Amino acid sequence: MTRIPFSQLSGWRFVAESGNLAHDSGRFFSVEGLHVEADGLGSWHQPVLNQPEIGILGILVRDVNGVPHALMQAKMEPGNVNNLQLSPTVQATRSNHTRAHRGSNTRYLEYFRRPGPGRTLVDALQSEQGAWFWQKRNRNMVVQVTGDVPVHDNYRWLPLWQVRRLLRVDNLVNMDTRSVLACLPAAAVGERDQPPADPFTAALHRSYGGLRPGLHAMGDVLSWFTEAKTRCEWTARPIPLANVRQWSRTDDEIADDGGERFRIVAVRVRADSREVSNWTQPLLAPRGQGLAAFLVRPFDGVLHVLVRARSEPGLLELVEMGPTVRLPAAGGAASEPYAAEAAATPPGRVRFDAVLSEEGGRFHHALTRYRVIEVTDDFPADVPDDFLWVTAHQLMRLVRHGRYLNVEARSLLACLHGLRDGLPSE
Amino acid sequence: MTRIPFSQLSGWRFVAESGNLAHDSGRFFSVEGLHVEADGLGSWHQPVLNQPEIGILGILVRDVNGVPHALMQAKMEPGNVNNLQLSPTVQATRSNHTRAHRGSNTRYLEYFRRPGPGRTLVDALQSEQGAWFWQKRNRNMVVQVTGDVPVHDNYRWLPLWQVRRLLRVDNLVNMDTRSVLACLPAAAVGERDQPPADPFTAALHRSYGGLRPGLHAMGDVLSWFTEAKTRCEWTARPIPLANVRQWSRTDDEIADDGGERFRIVAVRVRADSREVSNWTQPLLAPRGQGLAAFLVRPFDGVLHVLVRARSEPGLLELVEMGPTVRLPAAGGAASEPYAAEAAATPPGRVRFDAVLSEEGGRFHHALTRYRVIEVTDDFPADVPDDFLWVTAHQLMRLVRHGRYLNVEARSLLACLHGLRDGLPSE
Repeated sequence: MTRIPFSQLSGWRFVAESGNLAHDSGRFFSVEGLHVEADGLGSWHQPVLNQPEIGILGILVRDVNGVPHALMQAKMEPGNVNNLQLSPTVQATRSNHTRAHRGSNTRYLEYFRRPGPGRTLVDALQSEQGAWFWQKRNRNMVVQVTGDVPVHDNYRWLPLWQVRRLLRVDNLVNMDTRSVLACLPAAAVGERDQPPADPFTAALHRSYGGLRPGLHAMGDVLSWFTEAKTRCEWTARPIPLANVRQWSRTDDEIADDGGERFRIVAVRVRADSREVSNWTQPLLAPRGQGLAAFLVRPFDGVLHVLVRARSEPGLLELVEMGPTVRLPAAGGAASEPYAAEAAATPPGRVRFDAVLSEEGGRFHHALTRYRVIEVTDDFPADVPDDFLWVTAHQLMRLVRHGRYLNVEARSLLACLHGLRDGLPSE
Repeated sequence: MTRIPFSQLSGWRFVAESGNLAHDSGRFFSVEGLHVEADGLGSWHQPVLNQPEIGILGILVRDVNGVPHALMQAKMEPGNVNNLQLSPTVQATRSNHTRAHRGSNTRYLEYFRRPGPGRTLVDALQSEQGAWFWQKRNRNMVVQVTGDVPVHDNYRWLPLWQVRRLLRVDNLVNMDTRSVLACLPAAAVGERDQPPADPFTAALHRSYGGLRPGLHAMGDVLSWFTEAKTRCEWTARPIPLANVRQWSRTDDEIADDGGERFRIVAVRVRADSREVSNWTQPLLAPRGQGLAAFLVRPFDGVLHVLVRARSEPGLLELVEMGPTVRLPAAGGAASEPYAAEAAATPPGRVRFDAVLSEEGGRFHHALTRYRVIEVTDDFPADVPDDFLWVTAHQLMRLVRHGRYLNVEARSLLACLHGLRDGLPSE
């Protein structure tokens, strides 16, 4: 992957008048402008990625000797820091599978057509980064099959527990895999609970079990979320990229004049393993590394997760549940409650800590440090209005529907699943 | 209520350049334009009502001598065919409760602030007519209280079963009440099941019970819906009303040149019981009476409802579950499957049949005939891709979340609740 000036993009152009950066086919995605009026935070302009097509992120699962396995793909994306990452069986835009780019057929796509073969365990439209995408939705799917499946180059059956364990390795399990895994209940693939090895894991098991009530009944969780959506008076509307104020375009980047947000750049890619072996495209490059953390603690022996209702201009309903603490790659840090707790370091309380990549097909070196931090028992049950303590069981019930958990919260939920396997958290 | 020319509207004007019809305060709603590209159905322009504020539709419930009662309001709306209809305790836009129109305070609003007094039984953002509104959402709420509540003029505590029974009276229970009642599970208000009086009611009870499996597991219902949303390639975007082609404006109406859709008109209203006693406003006037029908039948002794995934340009995700058959007020009849079954007349199979009004605050004489028709046992379980047989239990689980059941499907679900009380269907 090499950076190139915009003039060397092939098949992409700045459209006359709007100034939007779009593909000649009218497909894939485009870089457009967004005008945001954020109640209480003022208003601003910014570029945004617009990808109206619904893509498929699908993982095929199957029992091998009684152990649930997932068919994972080692996939290169141009924005990855490290070339290959562990990706879903199918990760395809509609342009991919209708072959708008004249590449080869998408492998395994036939398993994800509905109605189709196998048992559908997960099938929901989920959002992605609402700060960078305009109302993007991807179809997150898990399909369980029984018979033989041909294993092509770059694909391998891995035990599900191992994929979850690999989350602890920096930049290995890609964002799409995390999003799909978050939606998959352990019971759906017939996994047996292991005996809890310690009080934390025992509390985590109870949190998934749903037998003991949480601090808030499900109806109250829904009502809290409805209240948060009602309270948000943000508006966001697409505008021509040419009209975006306080951002400037040079030969090879579009950047905010303050240098605090992100840049739009262009790259040339070579890849033997992809549908087409070389191409050029724009990418969104954040500045620096972000942070996303769940604070957790047991109440009455049941682990609870502190979620926050978060407004992002590109979300379809503007608000979804996100991490307790979310610091963007650059700026914004000062205004986040609980940032100190999220930065905690005592080994016994840091239950998860890894740097993971956001979608390398659209973002250049977008890294987020994901942390699950257990807070002490004097941390209050009463929290500000936009926060709520919920159980893992409640999160699993919500994530089936889409539009409840944002993409960082889903990544963290996948990490939480991994802790459930009872392995030491190191 | 009297029709007036647009020039006599007070506080409303056609905005320069856009030609949108808007309130001087910038609040309430506006009449704007919409450009729709409907995959397979071609493209068109139309006016659309834009009301970005989230209003509250709230019903207060309370036990009176052990019987659940609802505090209902006799409310005049300018577009009603009959002046007063049975309305929720609170039916208020944010402009109402922030007093943008300088009227009096909204009665009982304090019971619907969250967190607040009472127990929240229902709290979800629901859509309204996607053919007429641009992405409108209302907050549907039921709050249960125990203590005394002052009963003001035009309000009365009615047994819930009676409100549901009154659905059978033409144009009595208004659309907002129906929408909220649809979301309320009988168990939530402590109602006891009556012994089923006949095989139909017995099958209906089992349909709500959720103990016997339906034809499709919940995961398959969700997957079917996700597939329907993914398949829909409609796009809809607001445009200035002035740019709407094939519609014309005269002194007192905006109408489509073909005379097949609807009209925008203006009215003057006098009402002693409202926050302000007289005002002028625009209304959307459909042409003729619509039809919305659920076909139902038992499978293995459990009543199932045949829903259809329906695209409407003003829905936030374009697709929601709607009636089996939905004929608009004018036109479109020819293309609906099962229209003949929905028109059935054998008394034993017509389980519900009444003409009910759509929202009289925005629509002028908008009437829909609602029907629940039991089809015979030779009606197939296998139906076209956009139809699905679901149980009442599944519908109740979905309607908690919003964005699953469209407004006509919610009206029909409320009617179905009424049949559950075991009264003869006449």
